[in-house]
Amino acid sequence: MWAISLIGIGAGNPDHLTLQAIEEMKACEVILIPLKGAAKDDLAQARRAICARVLPDSGPALREFTLPVRDASEPDYQRRVADWHDAIARIWEEELRAALPQGGRAGFLVWGDPSLYDSTLRLAERVAARMPLELRVIPGITAIQAMTAGHAIPLNTVGGPVTITTGRNLRHNGWPEGAESVVVMLDEGGAFTAIDPEEVEIWWSAYAGMAEELRLSGPLAEVSERILTTRAEARSRHGWIMDIYLLRKSR
Amino acid sequence: MWAISLIGIGAGNPDHLTLQAIEEMKACEVILIPLKGAAKDDLAQARRAICARVLPDSGPALREFTLPVRDASEPDYQRRVADWHDAIARIWEEELRAALPQGGRAGFLVWGDPSLYDSTLRLAERVAARMPLELRVIPGITAIQAMTAGHAIPLNTVGGPVTITTGRNLRHNGWPEGAESVVVMLDEGGAFTAIDPEEVEIWWSAYAGMAEELRLSGPLAEVSERILTTRAEARSRHGWIMDIYLLRKSR
Repeated sequence: MWAISLIGIGAGNPDHLTLQAIEEMKACEVILIPLKGAAKDDLAQARRAICARVLPDSGPALREFTLPVRDASEPDYQRRVADWHDAIARIWEEELRAALPQGGRAGFLVWGDPSLYDSTLRLAERVAARMPLELRVIPGITAIQAMTAGHAIPLNTVGGPVTITTGRNLRHNGWPEGAESVVVMLDEGGAFTAIDPEEVEIWWSAYAGMAEELRLSGPLAEVSERILTTRAEARSRHGWIMDIYLLRKSR
Repeated sequence: MWAISLIGIGAGNPDHLTLQAIEEMKACEVILIPLKGAAKDDLAQARRAICARVLPDSGPALREFTLPVRDASEPDYQRRVADWHDAIARIWEEELRAALPQGGRAGFLVWGDPSLYDSTLRLAERVAARMPLELRVIPGITAIQAMTAGHAIPLNTVGGPVTITTGRNLRHNGWPEGAESVVVMLDEGGAFTAIDPEEVEIWWSAYAGMAEELRLSGPLAEVSERILTTRAEARSRHGWIMDIYLLRKSR
């Protein structure tokens, strides 16, 4: 029998680790670290650093493995993601059987929280359809909380709703109907330029929670250009970028 | 000069504490613990237990103070909240000046995360208008993440948006326009009975993250009654309840 712990490790600050996450890491026989290609090596390196910091020398082995890339030729987004997840699930199964031939617990360190715009839970469910598998999820600080903490702002207005969405949705569907506070994640760049900036405030963070964190905020019409420039510069400097922002309609 | 740290302590599991939260607590001269009346003494007790666990004997003093209650005679919700916040801000100022006559850093331990349906940030801003005050926010695990971790479910569908709202909003405004995944917080009880249950799934948690955690899930039409009964029983047993749920339209 195998078990997988999906352990939320927070939004990039190693101090986002919870006591529960540390205990769960120690309870694993192996920690599996996926490698996603050169551009995201910083993320694998951050996972290694977290393990080195909190695990005892006698603690779980680290095992790195390479993830497949998405098939860009498949035009349907949902289908492309599903095929990719099937391919990864097969690799997870191989890695689990190779690392723990007699069974045992393997940990995956998940950026942010395993519930939010992350594929590991769906991957684990696919793996569970292929082999006997117990699943445990440990929550982690998300980029949303890192962003609001950095700006020292509430996510919601008093008693008001919040919509969390993606850059793709904002760009294609515009301002979500009836929304007043909108968090945008997974933006490939500047989806906020697709909406009417009138009476919209933005709070923008890149590398939220990390030492490199960048923050800009103000009326969208005034700071939009500056965010685009800052984002492009940071991306070229680091080789990658993760950003997130809150948009709010002025009342 | 005074400083306030609003420190997210997670959703009720003392192991939700992050390393960052522990460091921030240690960096404070005093931790202020509000008392909200008998029904919520469990919350003050949980805060005391967290302090006892992670703070050194030489560490910050704990200082408890009593919060005023809301003026139920004011009919306007926004106004009622604003008046209440003004009253609390005056008490915070008094407590800060009494605890730290020469200035210094005071910590507030905030259930969940300071950004989400919590008044401490708005209170701190009111205090900052009354005295020189630096403000720092430390993120914490929210009840949303505790809920999804307990059920081992993703918050969003693949690439889909998520709406976070209150029981009050769901009851008065119905299913949020265009939403597919809806998190409901601050429900005074069974607001999900106000919507059409057809093709809606629910994942419900009470005391999410705590030892007493309760979970129910299934098609809303089938489990609605059982949730209402379970909630009423738990509330009468504990004297209080905090619950949260995710609703999702079946595709």
